[in-house]
Amino acid sequence: MTLPPDLYGQIDPPHRLLMGPGPVNAHPRVLRAMGADLLGQFDPEMTGYMNEAMALYRPIFGTQNRWTLLVDGTARAGIEAALVSLVTPGDTLLVIDFGRFGLLLREIGERIGARIEMLSVPWGKTVPMDAIAAAIERHAPAVVACVHGDTSTTMAQPLEGLGVLCRAAGALSYVDVTATIGGMEIAVDRWGIDVVTGGLQKCLGGPSGSAPITISERAVEHIFSRRHTEHGIARSDLVQGMGRRISSNYFDLAMIMDYWGEQRLNHHTEATSMLYAARECARVALGEGLDARYARHVRAGRAVVAGARALGLRIFGDDRFRMSNVTGVHIPGGIDGEAVRRRMRQDFEIEIGTSFGPLHGKVWRIGAMGYNAMKHKVLITLGALEAALRAEGFRCPAGAGVDAALSAWEDPV
Amino acid sequence: MTLPPDLYGQIDPPHRLLMGPGPVNAHPRVLRAMGADLLGQFDPEMTGYMNEAMALYRPIFGTQNRWTLLVDGTARAGIEAALVSLVTPGDTLLVIDFGRFGLLLREIGERIGARIEMLSVPWGKTVPMDAIAAAIERHAPAVVACVHGDTSTTMAQPLEGLGVLCRAAGALSYVDVTATIGGMEIAVDRWGIDVVTGGLQKCLGGPSGSAPITISERAVEHIFSRRHTEHGIARSDLVQGMGRRISSNYFDLAMIMDYWGEQRLNHHTEATSMLYAARECARVALGEGLDARYARHVRAGRAVVAGARALGLRIFGDDRFRMSNVTGVHIPGGIDGEAVRRRMRQDFEIEIGTSFGPLHGKVWRIGAMGYNAMKHKVLITLGALEAALRAEGFRCPAGAGVDAALSAWEDPV
Repeated sequence: MTLPPDLYGQIDPPHRLLMGPGPVNAHPRVLRAMGADLLGQFDPEMTGYMNEAMALYRPIFGTQNRWTLLVDGTARAGIEAALVSLVTPGDTLLVIDFGRFGLLLREIGERIGARIEMLSVPWGKTVPMDAIAAAIERHAPAVVACVHGDTSTTMAQPLEGLGVLCRAAGALSYVDVTATIGGMEIAVDRWGIDVVTGGLQKCLGGPSGSAPITISERAVEHIFSRRHTEHGIARSDLVQGMGRRISSNYFDLAMIMDYWGEQRLNHHTEATSMLYAARECARVALGEGLDARYARHVRAGRAVVAGARALGLRIFGDDRFRMSNVTGVHIPGGIDGEAVRRRMRQDFEIEIGTSFGPLHGKVWRIGAMGYNAMKHKVLITLGALEAALRAEGFRCPAGAGVDAALSAWEDPV
Repeated sequence: MTLPPDLYGQIDPPHRLLMGPGPVNAHPRVLRAMGADLLGQFDPEMTGYMNEAMALYRPIFGTQNRWTLLVDGTARAGIEAALVSLVTPGDTLLVIDFGRFGLLLREIGERIGARIEMLSVPWGKTVPMDAIAAAIERHAPAVVACVHGDTSTTMAQPLEGLGVLCRAAGALSYVDVTATIGGMEIAVDRWGIDVVTGGLQKCLGGPSGSAPITISERAVEHIFSRRHTEHGIARSDLVQGMGRRISSNYFDLAMIMDYWGEQRLNHHTEATSMLYAARECARVALGEGLDARYARHVRAGRAVVAGARALGLRIFGDDRFRMSNVTGVHIPGGIDGEAVRRRMRQDFEIEIGTSFGPLHGKVWRIGAMGYNAMKHKVLITLGALEAALRAEGFRCPAGAGVDAALSAWEDPV
């Protein structure tokens, strides 16, 4: 239990390139923004920054929703806040499941006490919209929940039309865009989704610890029907709801909205440095331009795919629905996938990802997200992968990966 | 909905001195630590930093508990994680209540579905240990919950002997030390408390957004009796519990321990920058020396009290049980408390606090916490308070506050 005299020394992480499924390296502007000093939580400058963050995340979500804000916790905190506020115990929750994060939605729903219906497809596939329509008709769910891009399988679920289906059936809809926000188009209003949550640590190029969320007017009405303001701070201008109290205080979106809204009703103490980070992530993304940013991720993903194929590797999953920012690569027969990852980390300071569940030991995941969706980082990664593969006894055409990736990067999007 | 061309500009908060009940200004070393780049969440350097944070928080909590770690969220997230993991629906939860944060414990317990018993005293008092003993005997609670220092009343509840009472009655115990950790002694093992949680944004001089927690072996056993590992990541070496599943996924301390422990079972993505901040907060505190740090807070609190009294102001609450790091000051009759606060903020860039509930409009709260528990900051604050009071028509002896504070600071602790 004795601590070293230097108390483990200053923070000094290796200068590593994170080319896995996230977290990735943060944009330096985001890291610098966190160096700003704190403010009192109701100081006008602080509430001003909160309002700015609300405005900055609307275009990133593709929404006009007034209630676009941050949940203080990791992306998973955003998911739980959305589900616990939307789903009442006993409600039917239909989960559209095509990977590990679909299973997480089920898990959270079960803990809330929902009746769960799963619409599942094998890993590597997405769910056809007509199957979703049939499941909604069959189960008449109160809430439909889905992941946009599931990094566990590298697939992106098409969402056009989902909102119309849900609204026609009287269901509320929820989508987790943690793995795509800032990297692929998020079109909350066009999709017609009621609640959407994300995280900073993937294509937004920030640290984990803040979960952007947007909430439609329809969902706001539902959530405020469950508003039960905390003892001792209730006020006459806040109408209490008749619906069942939300089972979490921390994730009660009604109280979180009353904190972010004009009421400024005290709830948690806003995580100020993470707010600064989230604000700067959005400024970086909007400053680049969202279309340019999405195109950059397309180039990066395309380059990884082309490079891996040129090395003689097979790509996992359905080409039509692949996420642009993370690519599953089959580990070739006879090659120790962990030995390759270890060489890349130890010799090149590059991290690529392993996999969960049915893909564990079978597939690497190579990400190119946010600040790392860059030409030179993709090329360096493919060069290192080639060297590590060769060292492990895999035969591949020298330099072919880098050449193919460079060419794929330069093709017009 | 149109954003300004500069997307609201770079983050640039005013250089304000935060002398309220928290958050306070962060220590510059903590802000700098957050500038370090991210790591993959299972990289050996990352898990190394997690292990170091565990070791660094043990002395700060005054414990040998193996399970000393961070919950990713604000201090309130730590409270909810503790209660939702300890309290099973239907359990009796005894809340020792002497302020707003006692009401919060009740609120969270109700949402979990506990039977709540309140042991309450008026704001400004603390609860005698014999009253606690009687309440434990009367209600035979499964869990006893209490706040250490409640900033809403500036009172610190004595906790010596609480653990013995709880253990003798077979109850688990929980204490929230958000407002005292790093500023007043926390003696988890000596007090015999099972689960204790804190936050960074007060006497530890960091940003809100990470909640240090420590868990006794007895509580760990109870929590693992409720372990129900998430679908798709369960492993044969993790024994599932027979107890009722914890109703939150994000706050399931069994899964959080399996993530921080040798299993390294994926749960949330650790909030890396906040981990760096928490680690540096602890290094700063231990580097100063905890006894010296507590003495510094005593000097600061004593100086605020002496200074305010010398200005002719009355101090709120029971002298014997006052927190050293925040002081309640009665707003004198005929003076507009908000006008004084506004002058201090606008003319001096100094923030002091308002109050909640029964003290609203009656008491200011002047904090001197962490990086702000310093002689010059207390003196500057008292000088500004005097000027603001005078401008609002209050008569007070010129310079008396600063002189008295300086003298009180210099007295031996």
